[in-house]
Amino acid sequence: MLRIAVLGAGRIAKIHAANVAAHPNATLVLVADPWRAGVDALSTQLGCEAAYDCATVLSREDIDAVVIGTPTDTHIDLLLAAVAQGKAVLCEKPIDLDIAKARSAAQTVERQGGKVMLGFNRRFDPDMLRLRQALDAGQIGAVRQVIITSRDPGLAPRDYLEHSGGILRDMTIHDFDTARHLLGEEPVEVSAFASRLVDPTLEQIDDYDSVMVLLRTASGKQCHINCCRQAVYGYDQRVEVSGASGVLLTDNHRPSTVRHWSAEHTEALEPLQHFFLERYADAYRNELTQFIDALNEGRELPTSMRDGLYALHLADCALESVKTGRSVRVSHNL
Amino acid sequence: MLRIAVLGAGRIAKIHAANVAAHPNATLVLVADPWRAGVDALSTQLGCEAAYDCATVLSREDIDAVVIGTPTDTHIDLLLAAVAQGKAVLCEKPIDLDIAKARSAAQTVERQGGKVMLGFNRRFDPDMLRLRQALDAGQIGAVRQVIITSRDPGLAPRDYLEHSGGILRDMTIHDFDTARHLLGEEPVEVSAFASRLVDPTLEQIDDYDSVMVLLRTASGKQCHINCCRQAVYGYDQRVEVSGASGVLLTDNHRPSTVRHWSAEHTEALEPLQHFFLERYADAYRNELTQFIDALNEGRELPTSMRDGLYALHLADCALESVKTGRSVRVSHNL
Amino acid sequence: MLRIAVLGAGRIAKIHAANVAAHPNATLVLVADPWRAGVDALSTQLGCEAAYDCATVLSREDIDAVVIGTPTDTHIDLLLAAVAQGKAVLCEKPIDLDIAKARSAAQTVERQGGKVMLGFNRRFDPDMLRLRQALDAGQIGAVRQVIITSRDPGLAPRDYLEHSGGILRDMTIHDFDTARHLLGEEPVEVSAFASRLVDPTLEQIDDYDSVMVLLRTASGKQCHINCCRQAVYGYDQRVEVSGASGVLLTDNHRPSTVRHWSAEHTEALEPLQHFFLERYADAYRNELTQFIDALNEGRELPTSMRDGLYALHLADCALESVKTGRSVRVSHNL
Amino acid sequence: MLRIAVLGAGRIAKIHAANVAAHPNATLVLVADPWRAGVDALSTQLGCEAAYDCATVLSREDIDAVVIGTPTDTHIDLLLAAVAQGKAVLCEKPIDLDIAKARSAAQTVERQGGKVMLGFNRRFDPDMLRLRQALDAGQIGAVRQVIITSRDPGLAPRDYLEHSGGILRDMTIHDFDTARHLLGEEPVEVSAFASRLVDPTLEQIDDYDSVMVLLRTASGKQCHINCCRQAVYGYDQRVEVSGASGVLLTDNHRPSTVRHWSAEHTEALEPLQHFFLERYADAYRNELTQFIDALNEGRELPTSMRDGLYALHLADCALESVKTGRSVRVSHNL
Repeated sequence: MLRIAVLGAGRIAKIHAANVAAHPNATLVLVADPWRAGVDALSTQLGCEAAYDCATVLSREDIDAVVIGTPTDTHIDLLLAAVAQGKAVLCEKPIDLDIAKARSAAQTVERQGGKVMLGFNRRFDPDMLRLRQALDAGQIGAVRQVIITSRDPGLAPRDYLEHSGGILRDMTIHDFDTARHLLGEEPVEVSAFASRLVDPTLEQIDDYDSVMVLLRTASGKQCHINCCRQAVYGYDQRVEVSGASGVLLTDNHRPSTVRHWSAEHTEALEPLQHFFLERYADAYRNELTQFIDALNEGRELPTSMRDGLYALHLADCALESVKTGRSVRVSHNL
Repeated sequence: MLRIAVLGAGRIAKIHAANVAAHPNATLVLVADPWRAGVDALSTQLGCEAAYDCATVLSREDIDAVVIGTPTDTHIDLLLAAVAQGKAVLCEKPIDLDIAKARSAAQTVERQGGKVMLGFNRRFDPDMLRLRQALDAGQIGAVRQVIITSRDPGLAPRDYLEHSGGILRDMTIHDFDTARHLLGEEPVEVSAFASRLVDPTLEQIDDYDSVMVLLRTASGKQCHINCCRQAVYGYDQRVEVSGASGVLLTDNHRPSTVRHWSAEHTEALEPLQHFFLERYADAYRNELTQFIDALNEGRELPTSMRDGLYALHLADCALESVKTGRSVRVSHNL
Repeated sequence: MLRIAVLGAGRIAKIHAANVAAHPNATLVLVADPWRAGVDALSTQLGCEAAYDCATVLSREDIDAVVIGTPTDTHIDLLLAAVAQGKAVLCEKPIDLDIAKARSAAQTVERQGGKVMLGFNRRFDPDMLRLRQALDAGQIGAVRQVIITSRDPGLAPRDYLEHSGGILRDMTIHDFDTARHLLGEEPVEVSAFASRLVDPTLEQIDDYDSVMVLLRTASGKQCHINCCRQAVYGYDQRVEVSGASGVLLTDNHRPSTVRHWSAEHTEALEPLQHFFLERYADAYRNELTQFIDALNEGRELPTSMRDGLYALHLADCALESVKTGRSVRVSHNL
Repeated sequence: MLRIAVLGAGRIAKIHAANVAAHPNATLVLVADPWRAGVDALSTQLGCEAAYDCATVLSREDIDAVVIGTPTDTHIDLLLAAVAQGKAVLCEKPIDLDIAKARSAAQTVERQGGKVMLGFNRRFDPDMLRLRQALDAGQIGAVRQVIITSRDPGLAPRDYLEHSGGILRDMTIHDFDTARHLLGEEPVEVSAFASRLVDPTLEQIDDYDSVMVLLRTASGKQCHINCCRQAVYGYDQRVEVSGASGVLLTDNHRPSTVRHWSAEHTEALEPLQHFFLERYADAYRNELTQFIDALNEGRELPTSMRDGLYALHLADCALESVKTGRSVRVSHNL
């Protein structure tokens, strides 16, 4: 039984804590967050200890691993402290919004032989796992073009957006990781357009709400990402991979399969699943299971600090392309 | 070049006439109908002769085959006259609403070696042809259960219904033929329920608007047919065949593939195709082509008078089941 | 917190026990079954007591409700004993294979004011809940025709089949309940055909593997059920309800949304979900939640002994129709 | 009745000639092509005159309009000659592979008040017409992002490719027109990547087989086009338009609706429709009908020389972006 502490009591941390509590091969020892009301409610519901200081719990001997679900700007301090105490870490992405800090943290972790897994939850989505399996089985031959559609149901609050690092680092970063995961080869060139089509006042915070990106690998494989902060029809998450002998496509999820044919329309009863908490519930569960299984069985963690670094660098390259009107070369010396 | 006369100038006859005119291996010699205005318009549009007496044109030497699209109660006289003149015939179903008259006509045609094809257009629908091909290729193994959904978009006018022979003989008769075609074995037992759910006043003409039928073959294969005179969502025509190693399903057709995802619904822009003229346009064309090709190449016609007889008999058995509350044995000495 | 004992340690009981354990408003006190190995494993995994005698645990004061997931022939004894001890009961269907015994038990429970909910899990399936909600909202107007497709992935072992009560009482019974649930009006007439298309040797135990049923209500609403013990393509569970202003359709579930278009086919990567444990996982969870919520909030239980009686009676009527070749009148004095 | 001459007897010209012959408001006067065997066969089949010199037929008084379906390098000469003779013209795209020549021709036509329609057949596809109608009806509000997938089933012969002008001017040019049609606002910036993933030897002719393009309009609307010369799964032609209040999506067409669920897969029986002759058969027919109707009714033609110029210029900009690694500004003084 792996003994786990969850740091954070917010939206994502709650999901992780419940998944740990329900996992047959792990024990949820405690939940820690300076936000006392949140921690108290969560620990009562899940039957575990409550702690109000994240840093101090990291030295406890009865904890094997920590899940970090706190605000982005605390990630590096907590993960380095956890690694220093010999704890395995599952850390929410991104490592940090500053690539230099993130690079430095990754180097420290690597030097210390730390076990850190980055929470790229979408890799663990059942559709994505099945797609990866089909690719590995050669069902479409060599990959040629990848198309990723990634739209949120609605614009986040301005307060959130101001500290998000911008759409490319906050939202598209997931898709950059998906692109790397599916291309099977590192992108070497990035080109991007960004617009304010949902809310023109985003100019005040130098951010955008709609982006289109192109990626190219050394062998010429191509990837397109389209991202928008608002899709009133629901959370739009689709992926296509075309290869030499076929194409694989995933579809959005709906709350039920019920279709309705009326005199006005056919095949319709409901919008798409609302947002990532519904859409990626299984992904979060699978992510945690792979983290626990890998630790229990002494296997390598399925994602790394380096994955986090690369995704962040691609976001930075895309932003540079938006600003300069040029395609940008991707560095591989991160 | 097969020289063809089309008898009738109404809805179905117009479809047949246009298909003959456009066919590369046939010539539309004339259109005949006592309804002068209809014939004149049709013959002008298609560039062929107009005739106002169906019977007399049958003796013309420059005609090889006739397509009969006149009212049901004229079918037997015209087809027997055509056969007597040595013409091949494509006759709209049903042969007649009276099974005794239909049987007698079939016997006469058989005695004279006449070439008569019954217009069971659905057998020639691209979906049905593909389904038949998959069955013949063994893609689902031995057939077990067939389910046929057959709903019209709206109730026909009372005047039409009064002379229709009733829903089972007028509408379900198509499905009885489809059932025989897909079961690959004659039904031996029929059970049916019938209701008036669309228009209770149909009781005045001893008819129904909603029926459910079960068929069983000697080896135990089963078929369900559901029929309704009104489906406000469009013409609902679906077939499923399940077998030992899989199931085949056809779907309805829509005017376009455009889907619309909004905040209220997903996957919807339009209702189904409206009715049989749209849905079975290809079927009518294929039917005529198979008629022409079989005659030009000296092959057997793909449907027969006997197919018409059987379908009518199944309708009569179903009606008897509705009236008696018993399942009814099907005769095979027609 | 509702304190619950689960009776049984087999396939279904394990699902119920895990759902109770994970439920925020209920406590799993114990699992009881004479099968010691099963109980020991289950109680260890879920962290509850183990008991080896179902009857004795019913008198414990620290138990508010019991879930009965034992073999069918023990249902009546256990549920009557539980009711006598004042416990609320969620009992797996069927009450019993003998309608007389079931009727007598139902009368006893009613006399004693017992709280018994029958485990018709499909009513709690998200698709079915959504469909029921759409019907209640009048989205298709008055119901006219219901079509239920219900096929298992493969034939159960002969040993199971011998004690199953036959396909109609064991398998179609679920669909009879669904039919009543969706028609919104009791069936008054039943007609059915049954065959042995999967395994002819079922004749040795006077059972069938493929059935087709028709139901009719007093106002003429119609329902068709098709059932087969083997669908090699997976667990086939679909429902259609057509009404005066539209139709509602549910679809099967697949393990992922991934489609594959290749040179041979399109839209395919996987078969359907395998069987009811996968397909109805959510239904079992929702069923239990509605049981717990109703008890905690003092509301009426969503299904009753009477629902169990009716479904069983419809199965008996269908069997009589198969044997006699007549449609059978349904009794409403159960 | 509009009297029409078709110039050309190849693949596309044959489609146009058959559509003219079948049109109720037009007469096919002749087919002209130096390729005698082709013209003879086509004119015999369609019952019209054969001519072997395209230029001379343009002066005939009994011809109102010409359809130009000859090789690209003859387009300008023939269309200018036809315009000089006062004939209306439906010309296959592109005007020419050289933008300077095309611009000069367009200016000449405009000076002379010629009636020339460019054959952007996809605008007349039923799916595209329906999509345009939904956009015009405001069903998704203001357009934000357009995604166009455009893949041929297989690489054309090397001989064809050598004279094609390259993938961007030969294949993507259709998609550039679609982009303009759907964005409802001219693109002002283009960025593109191009690779040789199907056939590396295309480097010998300085061409590519796989491209990804981004377009941006002045107000920030974005469009992505992905194009590939080979999709073994069939002709892949899909379009998505997302807007402020929803998204519209078109799907590929299949030869039938038949689905097959087996133990290995679900929802599959056939690959997509093979190529543009099948996929756009209705589009060609609609295109011709709009040409004929516009001329007969004295309305403006639905596409223009200018549409041809713009599409070609976008292709040139995309190629420049591929070569320079920069996004390229689109000129609007064509």
